[in-house]
Amino acid sequence: MKELSLEEVYRLIEPGPVVLLTTYHKGRRNVMTMSWHMMVDFTPPLIACIVSSGDFSFAGLKTTSECAIAIPAVHLAEKVTKIGNCSGSDTGKFAAFALTPLHGECVAAPLVAECFANLDCRVVDTRLVNKYNLFVLEVVKAWTDPKQSHAKTIHHQGYGAFSVDGETIHFKSRMP
Amino acid sequence: MKELSLEEVYRLIEPGPVVLLTTYHKGRRNVMTMSWHMMVDFTPPLIACIVSSGDFSFAGLKTTSECAIAIPAVHLAEKVTKIGNCSGSDTGKFAAFALTPLHGECVAAPLVAECFANLDCRVVDTRLVNKYNLFVLEVVKAWTDPKQSHAKTIHHQGYGAFSVDGETIHFKSRMP
Repeated sequence: MKELSLEEVYRLIEPGPVVLLTTYHKGRRNVMTMSWHMMVDFTPPLIACIVSSGDFSFAGLKTTSECAIAIPAVHLAEKVTKIGNCSGSDTGKFAAFALTPLHGECVAAPLVAECFANLDCRVVDTRLVNKYNLFVLEVVKAWTDPKQSHAKTIHHQGYGAFSVDGETIHFKSRMP
Repeated sequence: MKELSLEEVYRLIEPGPVVLLTTYHKGRRNVMTMSWHMMVDFTPPLIACIVSSGDFSFAGLKTTSECAIAIPAVHLAEKVTKIGNCSGSDTGKFAAFALTPLHGECVAAPLVAECFANLDCRVVDTRLVNKYNLFVLEVVKAWTDPKQSHAKTIHHQGYGAFSVDGETIHFKSRMP
């Protein structure tokens, strides 16, 4: 994994890919599939996300105030779907899905070696957690895998249907 | 435009497409391009979005507590880029970009006839506006254009680069 400048992080999240969110709590790591997230600010990069209070990851995220976001390419799509269809309450998902946990630099939550990008995150705002399960995260370190430099991501349309990134088109723009 | 059940709205927003946000304020309609948004809840559908205080739309959104979200298909991509590169402060964008404003049912903000989906929205939470420009919206009415039933959307990667929806893949899943 190669470090990515924090100024570049929005380019990974803004397109709206399905991501994995990992936590480490009470000696257990967990990973969940997440599609409800958005950029909030460029630098430092802030990301808002919804982690349901019914998710096993919720307590870990709330208690430790740390997580990692890992972005899977399309070759992981079936695994990502399965991760979203079981719970860390009764499944050790890293082992069950043959994912390789890596140590991040700033948080105890594990990175996912198979993903093409990983973000160490800290919770910085919980004011909307009680009402909406909405966390605001700050990305404190970012990594990408140079061997997956043109990764295609997936976008969830509901019930296991995903659109895969197709062609890339370009227009003149001064907007980041 | 045909009414869409509110239960189906998340399927439009969750994949992370670039959208247009419209407002109507002080007798003027405006439209801006937006990529920082996410689902917050299913039904009633809640959407969080970032509208910068530097955007012309900010005052209208904050004052009227109403907007519409219109989802453009890829054939509008160049126009969407141009909309994002000018300001309603000096440009009447509906006229400049030959967009057709339609009356919504619940809000004064206009729908965009050329878009394949349109959502009437009301602002329901402003607690994170001062710090992050983060608004929580409730979708109160949703519309789709039956003539654009297989619309491909675009996802912004920064500086006018967009990935276009490619193939759709399916895996068995019980998750909405």
